[in-house]
Amino acid sequence: MLGNFSYSNPTKLYFGQNALQYLGEELSRYGKNVMLVYGGGSIKKNGIYDKVAAVLKRSGKVIIEDAGVMPNPTVDKLYEGCKRAREGQVDLILAVGGGSVCDYAKAVSVSAYCDEDPWDKYYLRMEDVSNRIIPVGCVLTMVGTGSEMNGGAVITNHKTKQKIGHVFGDNVFPKFSILNPIFTYTLPKYQMTAGFFDIMSHILEQYFSGSDDNTSDYIAEGLLKSLIHSSRIAVKDPENYEARSNIMWIATWALNTLIAKGKTTDWMVHMIGQSVGAYTDATHGMTLSAVSMAYYRHIMPYGLHKFVRYAVNVWDVSPDGKTDENIAREGLGRMEAYMKELGLEMHLSGLGVTEDMLDGIAKGSIIMDGGYKVPSQDEIVQILRESM
Amino acid sequence: MLGNFSYSNPTKLYFGQNALQYLGEELSRYGKNVMLVYGGGSIKKNGIYDKVAAVLKRSGKVIIEDAGVMPNPTVDKLYEGCKRAREGQVDLILAVGGGSVCDYAKAVSVSAYCDEDPWDKYYLRMEDVSNRIIPVGCVLTMVGTGSEMNGGAVITNHKTKQKIGHVFGDNVFPKFSILNPIFTYTLPKYQMTAGFFDIMSHILEQYFSGSDDNTSDYIAEGLLKSLIHSSRIAVKDPENYEARSNIMWIATWALNTLIAKGKTTDWMVHMIGQSVGAYTDATHGMTLSAVSMAYYRHIMPYGLHKFVRYAVNVWDVSPDGKTDENIAREGLGRMEAYMKELGLEMHLSGLGVTEDMLDGIAKGSIIMDGGYKVPSQDEIVQILRESM
Repeated sequence: MLGNFSYSNPTKLYFGQNALQYLGEELSRYGKNVMLVYGGGSIKKNGIYDKVAAVLKRSGKVIIEDAGVMPNPTVDKLYEGCKRAREGQVDLILAVGGGSVCDYAKAVSVSAYCDEDPWDKYYLRMEDVSNRIIPVGCVLTMVGTGSEMNGGAVITNHKTKQKIGHVFGDNVFPKFSILNPIFTYTLPKYQMTAGFFDIMSHILEQYFSGSDDNTSDYIAEGLLKSLIHSSRIAVKDPENYEARSNIMWIATWALNTLIAKGKTTDWMVHMIGQSVGAYTDATHGMTLSAVSMAYYRHIMPYGLHKFVRYAVNVWDVSPDGKTDENIAREGLGRMEAYMKELGLEMHLSGLGVTEDMLDGIAKGSIIMDGGYKVPSQDEIVQILRESM
Repeated sequence: MLGNFSYSNPTKLYFGQNALQYLGEELSRYGKNVMLVYGGGSIKKNGIYDKVAAVLKRSGKVIIEDAGVMPNPTVDKLYEGCKRAREGQVDLILAVGGGSVCDYAKAVSVSAYCDEDPWDKYYLRMEDVSNRIIPVGCVLTMVGTGSEMNGGAVITNHKTKQKIGHVFGDNVFPKFSILNPIFTYTLPKYQMTAGFFDIMSHILEQYFSGSDDNTSDYIAEGLLKSLIHSSRIAVKDPENYEARSNIMWIATWALNTLIAKGKTTDWMVHMIGQSVGAYTDATHGMTLSAVSMAYYRHIMPYGLHKFVRYAVNVWDVSPDGKTDENIAREGLGRMEAYMKELGLEMHLSGLGVTEDMLDGIAKGSIIMDGGYKVPSQDEIVQILRESM
């Protein structure tokens, strides 16, 4: 049954090989000071920086540089970005990069004019925004997080070993995002594949919850089937435009609030994965893949009906003459085979996790209560151990 | 392959049994003169009028009444509404009704300050809006058209026997829409079922086009499966909230631009159905159901791959040991059986169409060129004859 909800997604998207040509028109809506946020400099090597900077200059903008956003943006970097945004009297933050860069841009947008420590207000206390928000635009160069059309902004605190995501409201969503699939071609295969699983995990964590009949789950199944099909092509042929463009579009819709409407959601794989990330700085998508099989096999008995549906509708398992449990197990087996085919990290040990970290990672995993089985901290340790 | 496109859908939706409680907050964003647009008065019988009027009064609004919007809103009614909106210096048009009422409200919103005949500018010449637009909000009481979250506005001209839909840009989309499934319960079964097929036809007309692999088609399949499942429940049990709420949500996403992104579309069933509507004033969804089977059987050989996919993915036809043509035919056969099960009109003769109208209806059908086989006027006559 569809519960009560509101839906509003004001982000304007420009999609395709010519998407950047719309940047100038969007820039004209904002003042002259633009903070250009990006990561380690790969956009300078692949030419995207020059293309974006050329549009900014043609539009008469003053560029305030904010480079060096790391894959897991830190709270120290956030403080630095806030200072820079205030000093530069920034009118627009333009994020050029993947989800980390977009997340960071949104975190700065709500934090620059926050009158207390934004880590305390937005991450520890998870409060709503009550101060001025600097608008954000995105030019996406890596797919996975959906950050280009949502309010998510994950920040890592290395001192406290916490990686926390605040999902802000639609006033914090990017005003526009430019999605050119070709801009994602130069990403190394490891990061590309990790991004594919991040997308899959977003869909699964919203799908594996609830016992009602809900249209959101049917949309989720469609997205999963398209993702499985296109990702198999893309890992073999990363410059296959058809596959990469479909994946880019799936990533956006996997986490822009649509498929969570009217239903409960789980999110424990992300909670555990984020805690792994805080301990290891491992690539986000790989922290999810490493814990997923153990997690889903653990909760399967508690949501058996949905795992049966998943096996049949997504993995084409024939249910004839099989018990529900066998159907569900066969579906998870096909998922595992697919993950190995993609080359995903299937073990935490491969990400630098050691036995002595497991208790700490479990303690750092925020426990969400929407799934078929709300795990205890002990159960999380068990899942982590099975994932080693 | 996903083509180039932009996506922007600024409509805010409030969904669920308590959705109307958000109307007051939305009204506070607009000036005091609100034109309350509705149809034949059923909202006065079922109490929705009183509920909405009470919120308007509590919000200190002046209500300018504009009742009597007919199922196929006419150009004469449009002129009258424009005059009323100008004279009342209307700040917001609040549509309370189904797709016809919402469509009409949008037509008035762009036409009231049009400096020439809006029929000529927006319907015959299909021009963009260059004048002031009055904002529109919707309280939906019938599902089907998707008008609550798109720019569509179909108007009928009885003098010229033309029923034409202009799909306006996102500046004309409703600013907000209130979607309470319970508000749709009192609709007579004939109109309810016609609405279900209108939804199905929207999805199918976007699905049956193109030969690429496109995520939009996977989403369409998910929506179709959810619709088939819930509509079978709703025709037997119209007050089944789970089914009715799912259908209401599917209707919105079936025609709010999402599933057409990056692909070509067909739309000939709507073009033929609208011409039938201009001749008979028949219920919109039934004009679509009456011509659909003949239309799809006619184009099937030209888009065989997609009809095979449709049969397998949507109608669970087993492809084992069958020719593509047989798989596709079996899929269409299951669709026809489903339509009969719902009680849809399967013949034009049942809608008051007579043989002597067929040439005129075919001439009045605008020929769109996105489908697997662009029909000639003669082919449309043939399809109409097969639909009698």
